[in-house]
Amino acid sequence: MSRNTIFLTCSIVLNLLLFHSWYFHGEWEQSWTKSATAEAEFVASISCSGHGRAFLDGSIVDGKPVCECNACYGGSHCSVFLPECIADADSGDPMFLEPFWLKHAASSTIVVPGWHRMSYEFNDDSLISKELDAQIRETSCTVQALSTTNHPSSPSRVVASTPYYPIYKEQTEFFNSEDYKFEGDTSLCNNNNGCKGNFIELVTSPNNPDGQLKKAVLQGPSAKTIHDFAYYWPHYTPIPALADENLMIFTLSKLTGHGEADLDEAVHQRMLTYMNLSTYGVARETQLRVLKLLKVAVENEGKEMFNFGYQTMRNRWRKLSKTMSLSKWFSIQELETQFCSFSERVRGATPAYAWLKCEREEDKDCNAVLHSVNITGRHGSLFGAESRFVRLSLVKSDDDFDLLLKRMGTLVSQENNNDGINKIMTHTNEFIGTDKCTG
Amino acid sequence: MSRNTIFLTCSIVLNLLLFHSWYFHGEWEQSWTKSATAEAEFVASISCSGHGRAFLDGSIVDGKPVCECNACYGGSHCSVFLPECIADADSGDPMFLEPFWLKHAASSTIVVPGWHRMSYEFNDDSLISKELDAQIRETSCTVQALSTTNHPSSPSRVVASTPYYPIYKEQTEFFNSEDYKFEGDTSLCNNNNGCKGNFIELVTSPNNPDGQLKKAVLQGPSAKTIHDFAYYWPHYTPIPALADENLMIFTLSKLTGHGEADLDEAVHQRMLTYMNLSTYGVARETQLRVLKLLKVAVENEGKEMFNFGYQTMRNRWRKLSKTMSLSKWFSIQELETQFCSFSERVRGATPAYAWLKCEREEDKDCNAVLHSVNITGRHGSLFGAESRFVRLSLVKSDDDFDLLLKRMGTLVSQENNNDGINKIMTHTNEFIGTDKCTG
Repeated sequence: MSRNTIFLTCSIVLNLLLFHSWYFHGEWEQSWTKSATAEAEFVASISCSGHGRAFLDGSIVDGKPVCECNACYGGSHCSVFLPECIADADSGDPMFLEPFWLKHAASSTIVVPGWHRMSYEFNDDSLISKELDAQIRETSCTVQALSTTNHPSSPSRVVASTPYYPIYKEQTEFFNSEDYKFEGDTSLCNNNNGCKGNFIELVTSPNNPDGQLKKAVLQGPSAKTIHDFAYYWPHYTPIPALADENLMIFTLSKLTGHGEADLDEAVHQRMLTYMNLSTYGVARETQLRVLKLLKVAVENEGKEMFNFGYQTMRNRWRKLSKTMSLSKWFSIQELETQFCSFSERVRGATPAYAWLKCEREEDKDCNAVLHSVNITGRHGSLFGAESRFVRLSLVKSDDDFDLLLKRMGTLVSQENNNDGINKIMTHTNEFIGTDKCTG
Repeated sequence: MSRNTIFLTCSIVLNLLLFHSWYFHGEWEQSWTKSATAEAEFVASISCSGHGRAFLDGSIVDGKPVCECNACYGGSHCSVFLPECIADADSGDPMFLEPFWLKHAASSTIVVPGWHRMSYEFNDDSLISKELDAQIRETSCTVQALSTTNHPSSPSRVVASTPYYPIYKEQTEFFNSEDYKFEGDTSLCNNNNGCKGNFIELVTSPNNPDGQLKKAVLQGPSAKTIHDFAYYWPHYTPIPALADENLMIFTLSKLTGHGEADLDEAVHQRMLTYMNLSTYGVARETQLRVLKLLKVAVENEGKEMFNFGYQTMRNRWRKLSKTMSLSKWFSIQELETQFCSFSERVRGATPAYAWLKCEREEDKDCNAVLHSVNITGRHGSLFGAESRFVRLSLVKSDDDFDLLLKRMGTLVSQENNNDGINKIMTHTNEFIGTDKCTG
């Protein structure tokens, strides 16, 4: 056999092997997942200059999904900064974790076939998959609900310490129920002053808006306490001790940053009844997604996600604190460093919100003062506090925070310039005064 | 150049092309969607003998997802029929459409990356994507809500015609609101008999449980009507005319068969408030899935899905009607053939439920009679009707329906055997009687 013939034989064998491999991949690609995968990869590959994102269910222009720009950015690729735009620090949308999920794309993606879990119920008649239930327990999300099974003879009075999360008031009032009435600040009912009947005290810790770790104020058999631990995650606060209260609410959205993954409603019977009547359980594809996300979140005991979250929030708080330290007209809450049992060291503050106070007597409407430099926050009055307070959200995207910080810097430098002018004015007045006196 | 050399050159070129192609696919496969795709394809490939299914979030045994068997089937591959098992015709779980979605796997699958729409809101501050909103409108799902914006001075009285969907009563009573009271049957308030105040009449058409097309009974300025068109789809009823009422509720779950895709709550402001307070909108991955499913559902004007649904339900109703025609002790509702403006021809009945009546005087508790042959349905009393009625669900899986039909056949043949025995007994008694008389 000539050398050429040997080469040719080898080459043909290689041809056959490669063809088999190519054909096999080809076949694999023809599977039912191909079109959805290609679509998702294409959308993810659209460039939006780091200031926006294209989505699978986004608007279509000329047959292609287009960029949805972050606030204050525009143009077809979100590359244009809109200078007159308002820095919106109102909502508590935890977008600061988006970069974490972009980094963990491969492990956090799900493929949902059209026939996935079409049934109303799982085959054990429950509304939540056993796997997700187990995963939530692993994430220490013990979710419970207020278990007054029958309508009580007199309505329970719902209270919270000022400043408090305004949705409590809205939720209680929306249902206009005979069972619950929102009464406002806990202190109104603390000193045995006209405070008969059943009480439900809502305790948010760390508190929304001011980030303080809180304890229940009311005691005794007629007082029930609901602990809202929505922000009790290492992103937002040192964890001094494991949460171990009777009635606790956790929110997965504040853990993973996914706005839709609220699982407040879960375990107790009355809450199950509510779920049955309102939405018949959490959507199956949501359960699948939450399961996947939680698996990533708790990998390596959650160290990576919590570390990412902590570093991001710590940097933001440091930058804002530095800016605010130059001001006398504005202040933000003071938060102590504390030992964190989760990270096993003393940690600085990383609150989800700044609780800004306008210190000058004339600045009674603090949000109006902020509007003068194109910032908007959430009015203190919504939290049962004075209007000279404003809640500023620090959990939004990098773009949002950067703009907020820049505008706060403008505000503080205006003060310092004004202060300079005021000093000059004071000198001038003194001079004029002196002049007058001597004149 | 020798012939061999030419062959060798060609072969090497082919090798290079194939290698490039293989390498390219290799790279493509390394993308972030690979692991989720492989997982979904693997789970879908698990065989469960046609009597069950493995799911992505199903139980894991030895590191592999296992089959979840349909009711009345067992074994690791669901191949074992469980003969003593109860035919459960209670819930209205529309699983009859699962084969349609299996057939349309490629077009109905979605890939959801971990970073998909993490924000609480879309960038137009809404809670629903524009694309989905447009798609729902295309599907003619005009969803509206009761628009009493302020709490009225006296509670509205909620009524419905017997037999009615029991959840109305439960929902109204659960919230224990000062605004609404459930009063029961419409007829109690029809003859100007103690019927002052505001009324809200709930009209379900076709009706749940009995499949009849219904109209509002109450008229006048103090009566508001809510039309529940959950079953007003060509699967379940001829469509005599386009739905065009003031307040209409549609449910996507009964359209596509996906238990979780309820979008009852949507357009009006008060309903938006409710969504805000209870779950802050429909989960983003659910919206993505609904968008995808609706696109498949309305392809070619929905002809394929509606035809599949109609044929399936028509076959079921024919088989059940044939069995029941042999019985005098049991009857099912009569439904007229009607012109269907959607399919442009006269169509036979295809109700979602059989409304079974036990005709014998002594069979006052019809569900108890069914229990004797291992069938369970939903008690007529839950629909405000007599207990000699039972609602039997016809929309569940093929396995469920087949078993129901078989057991109903057993019941009817028992009757006919009994009837035979009775005739013999009558003859015997006559004979004995005669004997006695002559004795």
